[in-house]
Amino acid sequence: MATKAYGATAADQPLEPITIERREPGPRDVQIAIAYCGVCHSDLHQVRAEWEGTLYPCVPGHEIVGHVTAVGGEVTRHKVGDTVGVGCLVQSCQHCGSCAEGLEQYCENGFTLTYNSPTADAPGHTLGGYSEQIVVDEKFVLKINHADEDLAAVAPLLCAGITTYSPLKHWGAGPGKKVGIVGIGGLGHMGIKIAHALGAHVVAFTTSASKRQDALDLGADEVVVSREADEMAAHVGSFDMILDTVAASHNLDDFTSLLKRDGTLVLIGVPEHPHPTPNVGTLVFGRRSIAGSLIGGLPETQEMLDFCAEHGITATIEMIDIAEIDTAYDRMQRSDVKYRFVIDGRSLANA
Amino acid sequence: MATKAYGATAADQPLEPITIERREPGPRDVQIAIAYCGVCHSDLHQVRAEWEGTLYPCVPGHEIVGHVTAVGGEVTRHKVGDTVGVGCLVQSCQHCGSCAEGLEQYCENGFTLTYNSPTADAPGHTLGGYSEQIVVDEKFVLKINHADEDLAAVAPLLCAGITTYSPLKHWGAGPGKKVGIVGIGGLGHMGIKIAHALGAHVVAFTTSASKRQDALDLGADEVVVSREADEMAAHVGSFDMILDTVAASHNLDDFTSLLKRDGTLVLIGVPEHPHPTPNVGTLVFGRRSIAGSLIGGLPETQEMLDFCAEHGITATIEMIDIAEIDTAYDRMQRSDVKYRFVIDGRSLANA
Repeated sequence: MATKAYGATAADQPLEPITIERREPGPRDVQIAIAYCGVCHSDLHQVRAEWEGTLYPCVPGHEIVGHVTAVGGEVTRHKVGDTVGVGCLVQSCQHCGSCAEGLEQYCENGFTLTYNSPTADAPGHTLGGYSEQIVVDEKFVLKINHADEDLAAVAPLLCAGITTYSPLKHWGAGPGKKVGIVGIGGLGHMGIKIAHALGAHVVAFTTSASKRQDALDLGADEVVVSREADEMAAHVGSFDMILDTVAASHNLDDFTSLLKRDGTLVLIGVPEHPHPTPNVGTLVFGRRSIAGSLIGGLPETQEMLDFCAEHGITATIEMIDIAEIDTAYDRMQRSDVKYRFVIDGRSLANA
Repeated sequence: MATKAYGATAADQPLEPITIERREPGPRDVQIAIAYCGVCHSDLHQVRAEWEGTLYPCVPGHEIVGHVTAVGGEVTRHKVGDTVGVGCLVQSCQHCGSCAEGLEQYCENGFTLTYNSPTADAPGHTLGGYSEQIVVDEKFVLKINHADEDLAAVAPLLCAGITTYSPLKHWGAGPGKKVGIVGIGGLGHMGIKIAHALGAHVVAFTTSASKRQDALDLGADEVVVSREADEMAAHVGSFDMILDTVAASHNLDDFTSLLKRDGTLVLIGVPEHPHPTPNVGTLVFGRRSIAGSLIGGLPETQEMLDFCAEHGITATIEMIDIAEIDTAYDRMQRSDVKYRFVIDGRSLANA
């Protein structure tokens, strides 16, 4: 099925209108008209070949929401007209231990990402949500229960939402727990909202004092400017967990030292240039941990969407037309967005 | 009470016979005639001022076993004639959260180490087990149920034993779990014995192929020479936990990459020169952790001693006279010991 999309044909080319092929829905497939697609930092890295292995044409986008337009004969979970979402994954082996536990993001035989992963479909690699429609195995399609008028702001939950929700849940963020969120960007602003809704005492860390009020508005109980040694010192040894959303290289000791005994610093960004090596003594003298976490599995993504719908949580977004994508990327690189760009799918029809 | 000891009067002086003062037992004190004292790497670092803050005269030794010779009026846990042990700690605040949980090693107000910590007793800092007797608060005195003929080999349990037992228990080593032990020295050889007794499948990692049979004899199910890439590759993604006993700077990624999803690399040595910074992607793509662990609390140390008595576990030792201590230090620095030196307390009487 010929489908309008926006993509790049080479690393040095801007994104532009292209026509891609989507497969006809198979027995277990769901065909989705894309209403909105969030803009993740990964999109920019991948399409501009800042990561290795970008395949062209490259159509990014893995924060997808829309409506079901057709379903295969064996589909039981979704029906035409349903409001649904697709996140970072569109397939996995479905038989390894991780898949069996619903942790498809740790599939031991390699998952299929929503874009830039090998696939049997043309052109041989997956193409993402900067497009009018997508066809996905029903198991990788999420139900959305938010109100229709919130739909655009739901899109970023499919990546930024689950990437913060999953570690917050895994490491027990909730009532009586003191949780830090490092960085107030696309990921961090979701981390603050979700940790607050989970009932934790939330402390936001930012390098810019100018974000103080914003963080409080998002739901932080306290805000610490991480460049202020005095402010940091007041929190030494007090956190149950700290979720570090900052991918840029930075000193992890500043945060491990703020953990309680048995506390965990969870990294969800992979830095391009390595962080300075963390101090081992800070880990040993407090049984502290540094861990990593990757998005979330399908069952937990559904749980997160339901939790967010119940608590009225969406991302805080700026809507753009697809033609504005390059400007949006440039602004995103300067952290000049509160807090996530979302592409209005209608703008693709005119592209 | 004047007490024969062996200590150094300055960083550049060898250990030599000195006479120290022990306090008269207070109401809650236990006076112990020291039968044997293990020789830990820390002893060497501290007495030679390779760590900061060594106070002189310095009498090392925190793997102490012996017999009770007197008790204070309020002592209920021990009586004259009991076989007892003293490890790395002789006091803590006893009212913080960690102390309340029996995790005195993480005392939030600072514990008192068995040597080189501030104390009200002369000469103002604690003096360790290279001495004929010691006086310790009963709470920091452990009961020993091993057979008398094993007593010398029990001494290293008080540091090397608990330092490996505590993380093995905390991170769930047991039946059905695959556990790695990195390094086959004083700590590592205890880690192998204890992990085996806990019922785990134990893989020992060593840099020297010559230690292969030794590791199997200690109880390892498999031995991997960590310099052999092929041997390492065969274990990728397979470990529940890896206990890394090596304090020398080394590449942690070699071991984090061998962990299963949700696996933990536990560091129990603090390197003098930092390890290379660990790869964050390896943590993220598998929700893996790097953690630290410090000795163990008093209740867990008692549990470890009881467990070892029940399973017939002691350290594998070489007994020395105190006059041989400098030679022993030199050999220990060359890793030329299987696997722990223990000082025969009787040799102090003649010193």
